[in-house]
Amino acid sequence: MTANGTRVQASQLATFIAHAFVAAGLPAEDAQTLAELMVEADLRGSDTHGVIRLPLYVRRIRAGGVNAKPNIRVVTDRPSAALIDGDNGMGHLVMRRAADLAIEKAKTTGIGWVGARMSNHAGPAALYVTMPLKHDMVGLYFAVGSNNHLPPWGGSESLLGTNPMAVAVPALDEPPIVLDMAPTVAAYGKVRLKAQRGEQMPVGWMIDREGKPLTDPKRADEGQLLPIGDYKGYGLSLIIGLLAGALNRAALGRDVIDFVKETGKATNTGQAIAALAVETFMPAGEFKRAVDQVIRDIRNSRRLPGVERIWLPGEQSHAKLLDRRAHGVPMPKSLRDSLDTVARDLAIAPLA
Amino acid sequence: MTANGTRVQASQLATFIAHAFVAAGLPAEDAQTLAELMVEADLRGSDTHGVIRLPLYVRRIRAGGVNAKPNIRVVTDRPSAALIDGDNGMGHLVMRRAADLAIEKAKTTGIGWVGARMSNHAGPAALYVTMPLKHDMVGLYFAVGSNNHLPPWGGSESLLGTNPMAVAVPALDEPPIVLDMAPTVAAYGKVRLKAQRGEQMPVGWMIDREGKPLTDPKRADEGQLLPIGDYKGYGLSLIIGLLAGALNRAALGRDVIDFVKETGKATNTGQAIAALAVETFMPAGEFKRAVDQVIRDIRNSRRLPGVERIWLPGEQSHAKLLDRRAHGVPMPKSLRDSLDTVARDLAIAPLA
Repeated sequence: MTANGTRVQASQLATFIAHAFVAAGLPAEDAQTLAELMVEADLRGSDTHGVIRLPLYVRRIRAGGVNAKPNIRVVTDRPSAALIDGDNGMGHLVMRRAADLAIEKAKTTGIGWVGARMSNHAGPAALYVTMPLKHDMVGLYFAVGSNNHLPPWGGSESLLGTNPMAVAVPALDEPPIVLDMAPTVAAYGKVRLKAQRGEQMPVGWMIDREGKPLTDPKRADEGQLLPIGDYKGYGLSLIIGLLAGALNRAALGRDVIDFVKETGKATNTGQAIAALAVETFMPAGEFKRAVDQVIRDIRNSRRLPGVERIWLPGEQSHAKLLDRRAHGVPMPKSLRDSLDTVARDLAIAPLA
Repeated sequence: MTANGTRVQASQLATFIAHAFVAAGLPAEDAQTLAELMVEADLRGSDTHGVIRLPLYVRRIRAGGVNAKPNIRVVTDRPSAALIDGDNGMGHLVMRRAADLAIEKAKTTGIGWVGARMSNHAGPAALYVTMPLKHDMVGLYFAVGSNNHLPPWGGSESLLGTNPMAVAVPALDEPPIVLDMAPTVAAYGKVRLKAQRGEQMPVGWMIDREGKPLTDPKRADEGQLLPIGDYKGYGLSLIIGLLAGALNRAALGRDVIDFVKETGKATNTGQAIAALAVETFMPAGEFKRAVDQVIRDIRNSRRLPGVERIWLPGEQSHAKLLDRRAHGVPMPKSLRDSLDTVARDLAIAPLA
C-alpha cells in the first residue's frame, strides 16, 4: 500500500497493457514489447512516462495518429551509422530496433549511431540508453520532445521542446550511472502532474508571455518553460533537436505538432541512439572498476550543511527499480480510474 | 583601438606565439599549429582560452609539466573509434590529430569517435568541434576541465571540473550552430577575469563551503562553482568527465591536478571528439538548408518585452570572428604586459 493507493505487480500491469494494445489493433508481439518497456518505465520511477501515457497512446492509435501495424525499416545503412524509418509506429518499437542496430554496429566497429524518423513518443530515454550497458557499452540518446513548450532564450514563442538527452555508463558492483534529463528546469510531464494533483508550481519552472513567473499549472498553456542555465539550456534543446530531429528528417521547430491535442496526426518524431564499446579504449572490467571508484569517491565526499546524502545520476531510479520489482508499481486512484476507462473503451478486462 | 587598449592583427599575434613556443623548445611545425589554433580562439572571442593562456603554457613547458616533443600516437584503432595517447604534449596538437582521425573514420563508416589520454589543456572546444563542419559533418566534443571547481550536487568537495561539451552543426548561408558550454553557471576563466579586472561576481556563480553566496573572485579558492540546473549540471559534468576522462584512462575526480598550481606535473587530461557524416542521413545540401530555416525561424520568432535580438548558439562568436579578422584581436594592457614578460623570459622579440 502507498499513501495514495495500492501497488500493482509488474507482471499484472504488463498483461493489462499488452491486452490493451492488442485490442487497439497491434500485433501480439509488438503489444508484448510495448508492455515490457512501459512497465520498465514505471519500475524505474518514470511516473510521468510509463503506463500513465497508455490512455493517450490508445487514443492516438484509434484516431489514426499512430500506425498500429508499421513496417519499421532501415533507410540508409553504413558500417557505423544508420537511419531508420519508423513508419509512424509506436516509438518504443522503433527505438528498441534502433538500439539493437546501434549495439550491433558498435560490436563490429567500436561505435554505432542510429537515427530514427517517423517515430513517436517512446517513453523515458533511460529505457533505451541503458540497453548498451549489458554489452559493456556506453549509451547516448537524444530525442525531440512531443510538443513545444520552450522558446529560444529571449523569445516568447515556444519553438523548441523539452528535448531530452541521456547517457548511460556501466559500473561493476555499483548501479550504472544514468543521466536522463530535459534541458528545462522542469519537464512538462511534471507540470501536468502538478495540475492533476491540484498543486502550484514553484517559481522558476515557467514564465508567462510577459516574462513574469507562472505558478498555476492549469494556466500552463499561457506560458513557457524555463531552460536550465538560461541560454545554455536553450542551446542544449536546440542541439538535441538538430541531432534527433533535423538530421533524421524528423520534425523540429514549427513542424512539431502537439501529440496530446492533435491525436489524429502523425508526429514524425525523431530520436537518435549511440552505443560506444568500452573495449575500444580499455578492458571493460578495468573501466567498470574505475567507474565504481568514481561513484564511491563522490558518494563519500564532504557534504554541504544539512545534506544527508549525495546521489549519483540514476541511483534513485535504480533504488526504485529494486523496490518496485519486489513490491509492485504504485497505482494512485486517478491513474487506476484512467486505466479503467481505457478497459471499458476497448472492452477488455480491467486491471486486476 | 578598443576602450581598453589596442588591437593586434591575427598574423602578428600568431608570429609572436610561434616564436615563443620555438624558444620554449617545441618543433617549428608544432609551434605553428599552436599559434594558428590559439589565435583562432582569440578571433572567435574566447578571450579566456586564447593567447591569455600563453604565459601559463610556457611556464608548464619550462617546468617539465608538458612534453615539448611528444610522440603522439594511436594506441587502439577500430574502424570507427580510436584512442590516442598524447604523450603529455600540448592539448592543441593532440586534439587536432584526434579531430583529423575522427573525420577520416566518419568518411568511411558514417561516424568516428576518438578519445585522447595524456593530453593537456587545448583551448576552447569550439576549435575542434568545428573541424568536421567543412566535411559536412556534425562535431561533438567532450573534455575534462583542467582543475576541479565543482562538487557533486549537495557536496562541498570539488571533485569535478567545469567539463565542457560542444556540438557543431553545419548550415548553408547562415553561420554554423556551435554550442560550447561548461555545465556550470560560470566558467572558471570568467571568475579569473573578474579577479583580474577587480570586479565582483554576481550571486549565483559561486557559493562558499557553507553554501552561502560568494561574490569576491579573490576568494574563489574558498568556494565552489554552481552547476546549471542544480543536479542536472552536476550530472552533465560527471557524464562528460566519464566520456572524456575515465573512458580514455585519463584523469577524473581525485586524480585531476590543478594545472595552474602544479606546473611541473603531467595532467593526464582527457578529451573526446566525434564526427558524424550528414550524408548518412540525408543529402548535406538539403540538411544545411533545413538548418538555415530553423535558424531563421528562431531568430525571427516573437521576443519577450525588452529583448532586442534572439541569438543562435555560436552566432556572437561568428560575428566576433568576422570583426577581429578584419580589425585585429583586442589587446588590453594587462594582457600585453604579460606577453611582454613572456618575451623577456624567453629572450624573444616582444609582440609588435
